[in-house]
Amino acid sequence: MTMPILLNGARGRMGQAIAAVAEEEGCRIVAECDIGSNPVEHLPNCGVVVDFSSHESTPDLAEECAAQGKPLVIGTTGHTPEETERIKACAEKIPMVWAGNYSIGVNLLIHLTRQAAKLLPESYHPEIVEMHHRHKKDAPSGTAENLLEAVLEGRQWEPEAALRSRSGLTGERPDQEVGVHALRGGSVVGEHTVVFAGPSERIEFSHSAGDRSIFARGALTAAKWVAGKKPGIYRMGEVLGLTDGTED
Amino acid sequence: MTMPILLNGARGRMGQAIAAVAEEEGCRIVAECDIGSNPVEHLPNCGVVVDFSSHESTPDLAEECAAQGKPLVIGTTGHTPEETERIKACAEKIPMVWAGNYSIGVNLLIHLTRQAAKLLPESYHPEIVEMHHRHKKDAPSGTAENLLEAVLEGRQWEPEAALRSRSGLTGERPDQEVGVHALRGGSVVGEHTVVFAGPSERIEFSHSAGDRSIFARGALTAAKWVAGKKPGIYRMGEVLGLTDGTED
Amino acid sequence: MTMPILLNGARGRMGQAIAAVAEEEGCRIVAECDIGSNPVEHLPNCGVVVDFSSHESTPDLAEECAAQGKPLVIGTTGHTPEETERIKACAEKIPMVWAGNYSIGVNLLIHLTRQAAKLLPESYHPEIVEMHHRHKKDAPSGTAENLLEAVLEGRQWEPEAALRSRSGLTGERPDQEVGVHALRGGSVVGEHTVVFAGPSERIEFSHSAGDRSIFARGALTAAKWVAGKKPGIYRMGEVLGLTDGTED
Amino acid sequence: MTMPILLNGARGRMGQAIAAVAEEEGCRIVAECDIGSNPVEHLPNCGVVVDFSSHESTPDLAEECAAQGKPLVIGTTGHTPEETERIKACAEKIPMVWAGNYSIGVNLLIHLTRQAAKLLPESYHPEIVEMHHRHKKDAPSGTAENLLEAVLEGRQWEPEAALRSRSGLTGERPDQEVGVHALRGGSVVGEHTVVFAGPSERIEFSHSAGDRSIFARGALTAAKWVAGKKPGIYRMGEVLGLTDGTED
Repeated sequence: MTMPILLNGARGRMGQAIAAVAEEEGCRIVAECDIGSNPVEHLPNCGVVVDFSSHESTPDLAEECAAQGKPLVIGTTGHTPEETERIKACAEKIPMVWAGNYSIGVNLLIHLTRQAAKLLPESYHPEIVEMHHRHKKDAPSGTAENLLEAVLEGRQWEPEAALRSRSGLTGERPDQEVGVHALRGGSVVGEHTVVFAGPSERIEFSHSAGDRSIFARGALTAAKWVAGKKPGIYRMGEVLGLTDGTED
Repeated sequence: MTMPILLNGARGRMGQAIAAVAEEEGCRIVAECDIGSNPVEHLPNCGVVVDFSSHESTPDLAEECAAQGKPLVIGTTGHTPEETERIKACAEKIPMVWAGNYSIGVNLLIHLTRQAAKLLPESYHPEIVEMHHRHKKDAPSGTAENLLEAVLEGRQWEPEAALRSRSGLTGERPDQEVGVHALRGGSVVGEHTVVFAGPSERIEFSHSAGDRSIFARGALTAAKWVAGKKPGIYRMGEVLGLTDGTED
Repeated sequence: MTMPILLNGARGRMGQAIAAVAEEEGCRIVAECDIGSNPVEHLPNCGVVVDFSSHESTPDLAEECAAQGKPLVIGTTGHTPEETERIKACAEKIPMVWAGNYSIGVNLLIHLTRQAAKLLPESYHPEIVEMHHRHKKDAPSGTAENLLEAVLEGRQWEPEAALRSRSGLTGERPDQEVGVHALRGGSVVGEHTVVFAGPSERIEFSHSAGDRSIFARGALTAAKWVAGKKPGIYRMGEVLGLTDGTED
Repeated sequence: MTMPILLNGARGRMGQAIAAVAEEEGCRIVAECDIGSNPVEHLPNCGVVVDFSSHESTPDLAEECAAQGKPLVIGTTGHTPEETERIKACAEKIPMVWAGNYSIGVNLLIHLTRQAAKLLPESYHPEIVEMHHRHKKDAPSGTAENLLEAVLEGRQWEPEAALRSRSGLTGERPDQEVGVHALRGGSVVGEHTVVFAGPSERIEFSHSAGDRSIFARGALTAAKWVAGKKPGIYRMGEVLGLTDGTED
């Protein structure tokens, strides 16, 4: 059985990516909405709403979903505090998945990194390396920052442990340090590696992205998962079974 | 406070490796025993016994440990069924760690592989690659076999899913398959990589060994952990906090 | 100044890929031909002809190019001996680039592999690993076979040195061996790695493809290069300055 | 036939490493000298002198070699300008190999990096990554600096193209840039990777060191090669057949 989806923000890059993989992921787009069309009238026909429009549209949509009892997957970002409050209020009536990054692989990588940082002795030294295409204008990437946070949480270290440049007479590396390195070049979509280098052994976790469809697939995975759940806000860790909801 | 260790099999390669890193790992070797010396008389002086002698020596030693209430870390392998029974019987009186591989990193890799295999959709295709030095006479390595088992357990697949050679007109790769590839060359101590290649993304876990001291360090980590535990047989997953003892 | 190109086979996948990157590569498609249209009448307007139609169309096109003095880049494959002879005969009058793979990176990788195989002592053991998407129906890839040939040529070894499966009781690895390993999974476009593992050190060369545009870019690089050359058949090594034409 | 070697600086770490692999590399240490022993009297018995003593000892030794017509491999570093002049003067009478790094693999990596930097279009963006153990007190490594030089030479770029830190709002990556990244952790002996990331493809070269024996083996390779050569100063590129002596 396929899941009937109302897709808001259908004309955007993510909206198009979602439409492109919907069938393959066991979903059916029953309504494509965007600026100029009103999603409300189509709500009764769908099982779940997936919203990749823009931050200012999400609160109204969430309130309509709450009124009609439709689960919601939120892909918009950059909400104002007021928008955030309005969206959160809806979570008392409907289940919603609200994540910064819907890629299954990235979420798994972050989870495993936190776990490894928690379990490995301090003599296993973490370093994070990411690579992106030449057009990326900031460094490090948001996902690299998430991996850094995961290391800091797992280690229970302060943010000062992060080292974003290592050059010159650095002295010996202390245990409480996380090097973060940003490579740029060509058309690389996105790669992230976390290294734990310890005494005579090294462990590495890495993720490589091929295109933005990974976010689309993850959002649809979330859509299928959230249907039938209790009201509340869920994160991708819960969708993927990575956490019990308390630690993430 | 350092842990006083009785080391049995002290003249072997692993025995020497353990003695070499003991101090660094917060342990003190209070007695080094091997063929020709009797460990029994030294038992009262130690906190934990670490045994890397040979399979036929372990049952006697375990029974002495049980009699004197000393925890035991077992590093010998290849026990006969009768030897295994005698060792197991001692676990009613003393705690013992009994693992096939004491490396912290390898155990973490196996654990994370099982977890990923359980969580990732079937469209994420697992492949295992290992590399060892030219002198290794069999393929794949024991650790690669352990990783394969971890994938099969996590996926709940039958052993037939393992593919140890892929050459010629193979047809499309089915979802239920695990490729296992053994590289040989030079003086590589040991490397293992598990790939999960899915739709537009790929996740990799890898482990690289520098020398055999990783097994020595892990055995001493186990020795410090097992002191004071309840009687029973523990695995490295429990020592490292990777499992609750039921799933591994 | 942009190079005016006549593109034959314009509706095929490679034809479309070439049209998509032409401007970026300093070329201008002045005529797009395919089944049903006659390239001959457009020949006078172009500086170079790029042919990715099909093997049976290439000889006629080559003969017209020879008659009108137009350089040719041949991207078709699978020519019969008779077709091959007809094409070769044209090389007495016009310059042509005729290569099996137009990717700049793949050609560089093959060249460096041959060079390393020639220079490194026999105690540096070569292994080849490739990974492709789940839909690929044969193994290893054509490029992996080219890399294997490059190793064999560089080492002056017989084809029997290739080992396509390593499993079970293999014994020690001999020096004269090249392991070839094919991984399959997900949507990986194409990756190739050549390892030389020697005494206490290891060298690796690898190539990773993002999409088929790499072949299109290489073909246009060849088109710009071949204009103004003396009659003859050239390979990508010469286009890229990798060889003097005698060794490749 | 084995090459008879006079080893100066025999008690140092490199001296010991050379003695350990001499037989395996087809050499025989006929005299081990160090502070307190005089190499001169042993010169007549050797075919080649290998010097890993210290910079102030090398000029005297070189002059004795010149007097007795013995080829020399120089492994000392940090010579004063005056010492350098005295050593160079000897090269009019004897052949000597004088290199900063004797590893076969590192020299090959540097050579291939220069070649790739020369051949690849500017749209292939170079990045250098190195990793060393936690005790290394400076960054990047000397070999990473050599790789950087090789890229700059191949590209004919100024040193300003080197970027040793990439963090914050960097803007788009220009073509003329080489990122250099230093990872530190655990007991990693030494790893270097050069990436060229271009449009839809990426090429990587990497080298991984297991221990210092790679420098010992390379020095002995140089010793066997230099015997019988004409007077002059040779570099490892020539020993390994990588260059014609003009470009390196």
